[in-house]
Amino acid sequence: MSEQFDAVDVIVAKRDGHRLGDAQIDWVLDAYTRGVVADEQMSALAMAILLNGMDRAEIARWTGAMIASGERMDFSGLSRPTSDKHSTGGVGDKITLPLAPLVAVFGVAVPQLSGRGLGHTGGTLDKLESIPGWRAALSNDEMMRQLEDVGAVICAAGSGLAPADRKLYALRDVTGTVEAIPLIASSIMSKKIAEGTGSLVLDVKVGSGAFMKDADRAGELARTMVELGTDAGVHTVALLTDMSTPLGLTAGNALEVRESVEVLAGGGPADVVELTVALAREMLDAAGRPDADPAAALADGRAMDVWRRMIAAQGGDPDAPLPVARHQEQVRAERDGVLTALDAYAVGVAAWRLGAGRARKEDPVQAGAGVELHARPGDTVRAGQPLLTLHTDTPERFARAHEALTGGVVVDPQGVAGRRPALVLDRVAAG
Amino acid sequence: MSEQFDAVDVIVAKRDGHRLGDAQIDWVLDAYTRGVVADEQMSALAMAILLNGMDRAEIARWTGAMIASGERMDFSGLSRPTSDKHSTGGVGDKITLPLAPLVAVFGVAVPQLSGRGLGHTGGTLDKLESIPGWRAALSNDEMMRQLEDVGAVICAAGSGLAPADRKLYALRDVTGTVEAIPLIASSIMSKKIAEGTGSLVLDVKVGSGAFMKDADRAGELARTMVELGTDAGVHTVALLTDMSTPLGLTAGNALEVRESVEVLAGGGPADVVELTVALAREMLDAAGRPDADPAAALADGRAMDVWRRMIAAQGGDPDAPLPVARHQEQVRAERDGVLTALDAYAVGVAAWRLGAGRARKEDPVQAGAGVELHARPGDTVRAGQPLLTLHTDTPERFARAHEALTGGVVVDPQGVAGRRPALVLDRVAAG
Repeated sequence: MSEQFDAVDVIVAKRDGHRLGDAQIDWVLDAYTRGVVADEQMSALAMAILLNGMDRAEIARWTGAMIASGERMDFSGLSRPTSDKHSTGGVGDKITLPLAPLVAVFGVAVPQLSGRGLGHTGGTLDKLESIPGWRAALSNDEMMRQLEDVGAVICAAGSGLAPADRKLYALRDVTGTVEAIPLIASSIMSKKIAEGTGSLVLDVKVGSGAFMKDADRAGELARTMVELGTDAGVHTVALLTDMSTPLGLTAGNALEVRESVEVLAGGGPADVVELTVALAREMLDAAGRPDADPAAALADGRAMDVWRRMIAAQGGDPDAPLPVARHQEQVRAERDGVLTALDAYAVGVAAWRLGAGRARKEDPVQAGAGVELHARPGDTVRAGQPLLTLHTDTPERFARAHEALTGGVVVDPQGVAGRRPALVLDRVAAG
Repeated sequence: MSEQFDAVDVIVAKRDGHRLGDAQIDWVLDAYTRGVVADEQMSALAMAILLNGMDRAEIARWTGAMIASGERMDFSGLSRPTSDKHSTGGVGDKITLPLAPLVAVFGVAVPQLSGRGLGHTGGTLDKLESIPGWRAALSNDEMMRQLEDVGAVICAAGSGLAPADRKLYALRDVTGTVEAIPLIASSIMSKKIAEGTGSLVLDVKVGSGAFMKDADRAGELARTMVELGTDAGVHTVALLTDMSTPLGLTAGNALEVRESVEVLAGGGPADVVELTVALAREMLDAAGRPDADPAAALADGRAMDVWRRMIAAQGGDPDAPLPVARHQEQVRAERDGVLTALDAYAVGVAAWRLGAGRARKEDPVQAGAGVELHARPGDTVRAGQPLLTLHTDTPERFARAHEALTGGVVVDPQGVAGRRPALVLDRVAAG
């Protein structure tokens, strides 16, 4: 079959700083999915996009072409509106777990297609799999039924959504082209738009533990994604939130489930509650429920009820004890002072090395491994006081976890107590 | 085996505009040759180099690493000095054919390792293969013996020189990364330095039929290559020469051999003679023969004698009739006026389509195919007068050759007769 375009012409156009035409974009992603455009050609194009950029219309078309490479889901048959949340990933970010049942309390369906962790950030499915019996894989029919009956589902994304994105993401990972905002935005949004959600709230993390280390780039990513969602007819809002220190007091699979259940029981760390409620308000607003009171639904047990039904619907036992790691070690304060830094990246890498995360897709994770925090930045601490507990089934990992934390835990005798970073830094909505 | 570097780190460094370190460059080219760095990683790096550049020291190191990927030749055992010429390629550029025997007349050895044509420019080996019996492949021993006995050899480059370049060149060709000056310069110079020539003259073409369309970029390429040669201890000079119109009056394999023999017989088109003599002077100067008179050696038959011995030494019969294409068609002037443009690229593509060139490496070429010119830019022509003769064995190709020439042959009733572009535009030597 003769091809409509030549891959080199498309690469050269972007290399030389030109816009790609709609037909060029459609062709190159379709041909890449078919294997006609080779990996080495797509990686050169990705580098040219990273260095020369794409404008709003190009990114929208690129996203559309990735969606067109696979199937789309359709929630229009449901009796309730849908809303979805996506986080760009951080350390201790368990928000999806309390958030999905909380929003479902108010008659909004939450189809949360999630992934596994890679590197220093955890994966929502890995966390839930620490609950005995719980399974991540659902058929489309099972998912629809659970959305109708329970209102919330957290499950594995099928391989049929945006296959071009899956292929391109693996390529970018090995070719130094992950950090291109047009490619990050289109990767996230192609899957979210293909999922067919009616509204979407984005949690764009900023700081050492996040993918985006600085606020300007995070803001640009947020604006780009909000534009893409809006152009595709999805009501989209983004919050920029701090990820310089871990969210909550745990990083690790079962540890984070435990903390999420505390939040659903009306307790839990203040920052996890604050962000859960803030994101729930945005989702409920976007889904046409501006008067809902999510804080009340955490306090009075309605969110916990949905959580229990959601876990049980996927085979999990909400009352079963969670796995606990076989070995613990503590990190203690070396002097009196104020804890001025508890670096999110350092804690993320420590949890990963303890067995909570994986280095390669096929690695297993330990359900009980991770890091528990006993103090937060701004807290006054005394010499010898435990700051962290490290958990693992494999004690030979402690040494490298301690190593990861070197320099990431700072107790300053002259530090100012009570100084904490703001959690929600900015809000981006369609302009 | 554990690797010294990670490919992604090297790509990201160049992507973010940093210099590559010596050890990074050595590693990445060695690992690419070994297959540890994948094609998709090298193409992303090539695009980053194209867009962010490399400085003089980086290019020199890159060139050195390509040389180190293979074997080096050594002409120091010869009883005479060596000099070599490289052209960046143009339409009708048969200069190597008369030039190599001409320089050898004066006791300078000319080891001319050449290639085949691809696209609209012809290949020296394709041209010589139109001589019955002539063979391009020589062993190193055969080459050395011929250099000692005859003084000139034109043969195929062995696959042992700079294998990293061979692999990288094929990759750049399909990934839109050919046009990077650091990569072009290092590709050419790695092979020339590995060949071990004592001096080198570069013919950098400028204009529609050349790889470099504008004089600024051609000048930058020339300077980069002269620096690389100089840094490697090779006496290197470059001439920038016009390639807006074909060189001489023929483009095609046997057609160009015929014209070269005319030049060796003391005749031939003025521009071919001018450039042959200019390049011969540079090569002889560089090899320590500043008093040689190449024009005299063309006029008195000494260059022809060496040519005949050079062809015969490689199995060719210098007296055998050259192949002639089975079919001819003419392109005539449509009006009275001055021929103001005879575009090199248009003529090159026409010759290619007639069968003189190849689209893929494995395609055969027609020995007799090509384009013969009967007028030069600046000539006054009359309506109906033949301007070009097209030659091919396969007459179904005429239509697409005529198409290629559309707009490339301009007769202007108001044109100024006698206005011709200068041939040698500039000279670049170590500063």
